Amino acid sequence: MKETVVRRIKDVQLKDPVLVEGLPGVGHVGKLVAEHLVEELKAEKIMEIYSPHFPPQVMVLEDGTIKQVRNEVYAYKGKSQGEPDLLLLVGDYQSATNEGHYELSGIFLDMAQEFGVKRIYTLGGYGTGQFVDKPTVLGAATSTALVDEMKGQGVMFQENEPGGGIIGISGLLLGLGHLRGFEAVCLMGVTSGYLVDPKSAQEVLKILTKILGLEVNMQALEDRAKEMEKIVGKLQEMERAQAPYECGGEEDLRYIG
Amino acid sequence: MKETVVRRIKDVQLKDPVLVEGLPGVGHVGKLVAEHLVEELKAEKIMEIYSPHFPPQVMVLEDGTIKQVRNEVYAYKGKSQGEPDLLLLVGDYQSATNEGHYELSGIFLDMAQEFGVKRIYTLGGYGTGQFVDKPTVLGAATSTALVDEMKGQGVMFQENEPGGGIIGISGLLLGLGHLRGFEAVCLMGVTSGYLVDPKSAQEVLKILTKILGLEVNMQALEDRAKEMEKIVGKLQEMERAQAPYECGGEEDLRYIG
Amino acid sequence: MKETVVRRIKDVQLKDPVLVEGLPGVGHVGKLVAEHLVEELKAEKIMEIYSPHFPPQVMVLEDGTIKQVRNEVYAYKGKSQGEPDLLLLVGDYQSATNEGHYELSGIFLDMAQEFGVKRIYTLGGYGTGQFVDKPTVLGAATSTALVDEMKGQGVMFQENEPGGGIIGISGLLLGLGHLRGFEAVCLMGVTSGYLVDPKSAQEVLKILTKILGLEVNMQALEDRAKEMEKIVGKLQEMERAQAPYECGGEEDLRYIG
Amino acid sequence: MKETVVRRIKDVQLKDPVLVEGLPGVGHVGKLVAEHLVEELKAEKIMEIYSPHFPPQVMVLEDGTIKQVRNEVYAYKGKSQGEPDLLLLVGDYQSATNEGHYELSGIFLDMAQEFGVKRIYTLGGYGTGQFVDKPTVLGAATSTALVDEMKGQGVMFQENEPGGGIIGISGLLLGLGHLRGFEAVCLMGVTSGYLVDPKSAQEVLKILTKILGLEVNMQALEDRAKEMEKIVGKLQEMERAQAPYECGGEEDLRYIG
Repeated sequence: MKETVVRRIKDVQLKDPVLVEGLPGVGHVGKLVAEHLVEELKAEKIMEIYSPHFPPQVMVLEDGTIKQVRNEVYAYKGKSQGEPDLLLLVGDYQSATNEGHYELSGIFLDMAQEFGVKRIYTLGGYGTGQFVDKPTVLGAATSTALVDEMKGQGVMFQENEPGGGIIGISGLLLGLGHLRGFEAVCLMGVTSGYLVDPKSAQEVLKILTKILGLEVNMQALEDRAKEMEKIVGKLQEMERAQAPYECGGEEDLRYIG
Repeated sequence: MKETVVRRIKDVQLKDPVLVEGLPGVGHVGKLVAEHLVEELKAEKIMEIYSPHFPPQVMVLEDGTIKQVRNEVYAYKGKSQGEPDLLLLVGDYQSATNEGHYELSGIFLDMAQEFGVKRIYTLGGYGTGQFVDKPTVLGAATSTALVDEMKGQGVMFQENEPGGGIIGISGLLLGLGHLRGFEAVCLMGVTSGYLVDPKSAQEVLKILTKILGLEVNMQALEDRAKEMEKIVGKLQEMERAQAPYECGGEEDLRYIG
Repeated sequence: MKETVVRRIKDVQLKDPVLVEGLPGVGHVGKLVAEHLVEELKAEKIMEIYSPHFPPQVMVLEDGTIKQVRNEVYAYKGKSQGEPDLLLLVGDYQSATNEGHYELSGIFLDMAQEFGVKRIYTLGGYGTGQFVDKPTVLGAATSTALVDEMKGQGVMFQENEPGGGIIGISGLLLGLGHLRGFEAVCLMGVTSGYLVDPKSAQEVLKILTKILGLEVNMQALEDRAKEMEKIVGKLQEMERAQAPYECGGEEDLRYIG
Repeated sequence: MKETVVRRIKDVQLKDPVLVEGLPGVGHVGKLVAEHLVEELKAEKIMEIYSPHFPPQVMVLEDGTIKQVRNEVYAYKGKSQGEPDLLLLVGDYQSATNEGHYELSGIFLDMAQEFGVKRIYTLGGYGTGQFVDKPTVLGAATSTALVDEMKGQGVMFQENEPGGGIIGISGLLLGLGHLRGFEAVCLMGVTSGYLVDPKSAQEVLKILTKILGLEVNMQALEDRAKEMEKIVGKLQEMERAQAPYECGGEEDLRYIG
């Protein structure tokens, strides 16, 4: 396999679908949100993408069978009034090479064009390097009109943030998409970046479902967030437990001296 | 040479051959097994594969002549009743690039298709980072039916093992092979991963020959395993010899104090 | 997007234009000079170059909108007598790969040929690893006649400097350009290489505008240089403040001893 | 420039020329020998090779002009009786990528075929990590007959040396050359590998000229070797000067204690 291969699983007719991308990245925020949507909406898999730009790897599943690493596209036909049709892009990895990022972005935009997509949401995490108490959602978009629209939905826009720009598929779908006439928004859940962050994913999901007019049960993500909060709580306790001990040692020494 | 080159050495007619891959990897387990089979079965070389994805290197042989690094395919026609015909894939290196892994896997699967291969065994090592007393063989396969068949042969399947999936040619022949309709099994000898491990290779060889219904003299591999056991034994002795010394030192200090 | 894409923004007719390249590099000297020229001359953007050899990234602008990283070509039609027409090559990044440097240089030379360019100036920094009091401009050129011409303009040429040659687009436009019959000069502002260096950029700009017979307001660059000088001054103060302290500590110890 | 370019400088007719490769490598041994031959034999440049697999760099020459990094082929027509015609391959760099090594080797072998070359000598260094008092020349060859012939000329062949095989162009011209029917020998001057080693180059040159029946003035290389010996001598003195000092310190302490 020398070239990226798109394997069509199923033909579907969608009406003005919205593309939502959630591939792995900082805090796995985008991945958590997009995979939650796939599950809760019972979206249907319509494509698998295999590429020599992914790591040369298979995953081993719980039953001992394997899965070639890939990206996948799921389709969802809006059920209740006002719900849009969706294309959901998820997967095991982003490209492992720079060139692959560009090639795969091009392939995804071709696919979006074919389905008549006009608007794209890319989901990611914005790592601050510190534990975040009240996660917010940072945005970037392809036009000032879109920026204003997103501000109205509670998305934060801070001058010069993220300072390093947006790297990978979540950035390129905006940058290359804009050049091809797509409207596109990147929603970044603020996160420490150290751990998988379902709490940050919850915030992104809340805003995204509000924007899209979707009703989605959030229990599964909330359960994972609570579990993770316990782990983070324990980590912080251990940190605090360690710190006074060290201080105590030092004070002791001074006292003796 | 800009492209991978397949050099045909000999034409052979095989009946439903089984492909066995044993290229270098963790503990050189797969390589030891496959090369042992080539030698003991007196398999015939039918192909050499040269690729710009291998390191730019020649090996220097004992007589001062050189060999361009390559992969090789050997053929074996089953002699006694019930023995299958075999294609054995061995070599000096796996691809040095991600893309090369995908390209070479594609070339090997083309070759398998041409020969009418239906089933593929890929051989590797599973590194635990600790010296292993009683080596076992871990498996992964392309279907649950195959998983069950392998369990019946003594292959272990553990949930979420290997956690990182299977990387390189041994993984891709399963992942890409499955997409092309091959049945494929990966047999991984559990090994420390620190040293070449002929003992682990013996376990893989035992299971593989049982599955294939082959009778193969295992003496050569047993001799190497015994030699290696002596080396490992000495390494462990040295470790033990060092450890009490350090402890003694500490106790000594406490005693004095 | 698998290939580099040149997007034509505007058609212009230029007369024997001179190509000036100032992409990011050591001390961002070349970038500062070329972007200053674009701004002061109100040059017009005529091309955008997108490439899979750039990082897979978008920049986030102050207003929350994004920009796909790229290179850009601006055109300037000489206004007063004696002013040449100019093509100015600027951008966010140079290629992230070796091969990309060669490919993009080829594309830029094709473009230069199309516009009838005869002479090229590439701008860069020459990092010395030390703070530079009086910045000078080091040169390299495609012929001894050009070297002599540049010496007459105050450009320094030192034997075996820069020792490591010139790396990246500023080097390749000379090397590959010379093979295709262009006259080309590289002007390198001597700089520490630690920080963005507008002072060094000022020196390069002075010489370049003299050579080209351009009148350009230098205030903006001067303001930035003064600002940067304050920062450097503080850094040096901090260094000096720290140094005697350490010495004092040592003297103290000796005194006690 | 996306592809490697061969620029023909001059047409020459050669009779059964021998190809000698001396590109930069360990201790620059091969480069020193081949460039010495080019100079002393006043060989004529007939080709320049430019490649995106070389570093993206120009060299700056003493007069301030530049040279695009490249490989070059020089031709020499044997003057006295028994002298062979020669093709000498020299240059600034070997390929910077694995794939480039394979591609360039293929291009050089095409060129060799075109000129009717039957035998190839590749020159390199074999780094031991220690200063070498009496340098020897280690060999590898494409056939046992050639190995025997080289032994007769004083070339050393040691079992399993070099253990890591031969990496880069000097290896591939043997490995890929052998597959295309060339006779090829690699001559490796044993060297520390820390410094440019003209003394080791002298040994390689002596053996090579004897084999080829060439008479070449060796003074220039001898002068450089003497110079380098002085530098090495000083380095060793400094090492010795440092060593007793440290020991003395330790003894002192023991004495006190």
